[in-house]
Amino acid sequence: MSSEGSSIMDRVEVLYFDVFGTVVDYVDTVTKALRWEIANTAIADASVLQALQQDYDWRYFTLMWRQQYKLETKRLADIGNPDKVTVDQMHMNALNRLIADLPLAPGKESSRAVAHHATKAVSKALDQAWTQDVRERLNFTWHLLEPWADSVAGLQALKAHFKLGTLTNGNLNLMVDMAKHANLAWDFVLTADMMGSFKPDPLMYRKAMQLFDIQLEADAHKACMVAAHLYDLEAAKACGMTTVFISSRPTEDQLPAEGKPGYVDLVVADLLELAQFIR
Amino acid sequence: MSSEGSSIMDRVEVLYFDVFGTVVDYVDTVTKALRWEIANTAIADASVLQALQQDYDWRYFTLMWRQQYKLETKRLADIGNPDKVTVDQMHMNALNRLIADLPLAPGKESSRAVAHHATKAVSKALDQAWTQDVRERLNFTWHLLEPWADSVAGLQALKAHFKLGTLTNGNLNLMVDMAKHANLAWDFVLTADMMGSFKPDPLMYRKAMQLFDIQLEADAHKACMVAAHLYDLEAAKACGMTTVFISSRPTEDQLPAEGKPGYVDLVVADLLELAQFIR
Repeated sequence: MSSEGSSIMDRVEVLYFDVFGTVVDYVDTVTKALRWEIANTAIADASVLQALQQDYDWRYFTLMWRQQYKLETKRLADIGNPDKVTVDQMHMNALNRLIADLPLAPGKESSRAVAHHATKAVSKALDQAWTQDVRERLNFTWHLLEPWADSVAGLQALKAHFKLGTLTNGNLNLMVDMAKHANLAWDFVLTADMMGSFKPDPLMYRKAMQLFDIQLEADAHKACMVAAHLYDLEAAKACGMTTVFISSRPTEDQLPAEGKPGYVDLVVADLLELAQFIR
Repeated sequence: MSSEGSSIMDRVEVLYFDVFGTVVDYVDTVTKALRWEIANTAIADASVLQALQQDYDWRYFTLMWRQQYKLETKRLADIGNPDKVTVDQMHMNALNRLIADLPLAPGKESSRAVAHHATKAVSKALDQAWTQDVRERLNFTWHLLEPWADSVAGLQALKAHFKLGTLTNGNLNLMVDMAKHANLAWDFVLTADMMGSFKPDPLMYRKAMQLFDIQLEADAHKACMVAAHLYDLEAAKACGMTTVFISSRPTEDQLPAEGKPGYVDLVVADLLELAQFIR
């Protein structure tokens, strides 16, 4: 244990967690759901069905689904989300777009196999086979993401010492479903639809601090953002918050080759390592 | 068990709880804190000190403290809380006013004993003795209120079946402290400072439903307000919500002599009785 890590955490009172990727593993959960769904899909053309069931790279589909959401929250953070679109709606819009134009992992055998069947025809068959019911079931997978191995115990250990909750671009209904499913012991749930914007809009971080009576000038270090995404921590630090980077999530940001950026106060592998800095 | 009660609860998905008085007992907790504080207060004039320590009715002081808060939230709900005053600040303002002008329980021996010492002089002595530190400690008592005997087990039982949280005029920081202290198993915490108004402003109930994707016209019955205050249930029913009155709280509203008002769907003694309607 570095005593520096403990010194940093000593001054913290409230922990705000990024959720998707940081606390739960969307890649594995969503990819499994897509594979289960396609295994139970009936399509008359056997070669198209085989391409979708055996050759197609559904993990890549998941990564593209996530990327579409990221681009959309970024766009809406810039313009203030005038139509009050929730993450649930964004996910559904993105799912519809991806089905209509099936994304192909670059340079992979699996993609070439699908391409061989003419992607447009495969997309069209899928578009017809996956009804609104199927799409809603798939979209709901984002409510039931599985935690990383350290998340449940890590949050429990941290909860005994800090006030802790989410500061996420997800919506409240989704976060509550997820917390019940994955047993995440939040003290509070702050979400984009409550706060009226999306990270990295500074409004999100400032409002989160104000709600805990943390003075933005004098006391912002009492608020700590925990994330596996560097853009999130950079924005939190610009608002004066303490910042912790979770480095062990294979699907999220990795530390740059030149090492820890200046806006990151502390790097830990996972939530259990973070809990070890409590003293 | 009435099957009518189960029928009513069958259609509910999200439970929104009033907190002060409904889930926690502010009268007992706050009165004890005031008595502890005055027992540890030094005042040179022995007869004034005795009046405050032995004769004065601190339970009545607590009831008046609560009443001031109620009047203030009502006033701010009407004008939209332009200065973003939190319940913490309201409580402190009210405490200062009550110390400066000590309220006397009408017609009680204890009050006459204080009056005998000239209330103004007693107030003045207390005002000098209770420093800012003492007042902040007393004000923080509202963060540490004790649950009613059925509350913790009742919420746990209900949590297994419903999404459940607060819809309170309290502020977030206060509610999180209280939940950690009293072991209240909320899935979410919705508070006046998050929502930008106070109950019974319809905005509070509507926003609470929207955050769970409950359509205000078609599906409002899926949202259920639980309270020991009739004004709260009347306002919730006007927004279409299902309403449950908790009838066993001695310090809160009692059913009118003419029986259950039309805007109340279900009357239960406490949260454990409510949990028995799950089927």
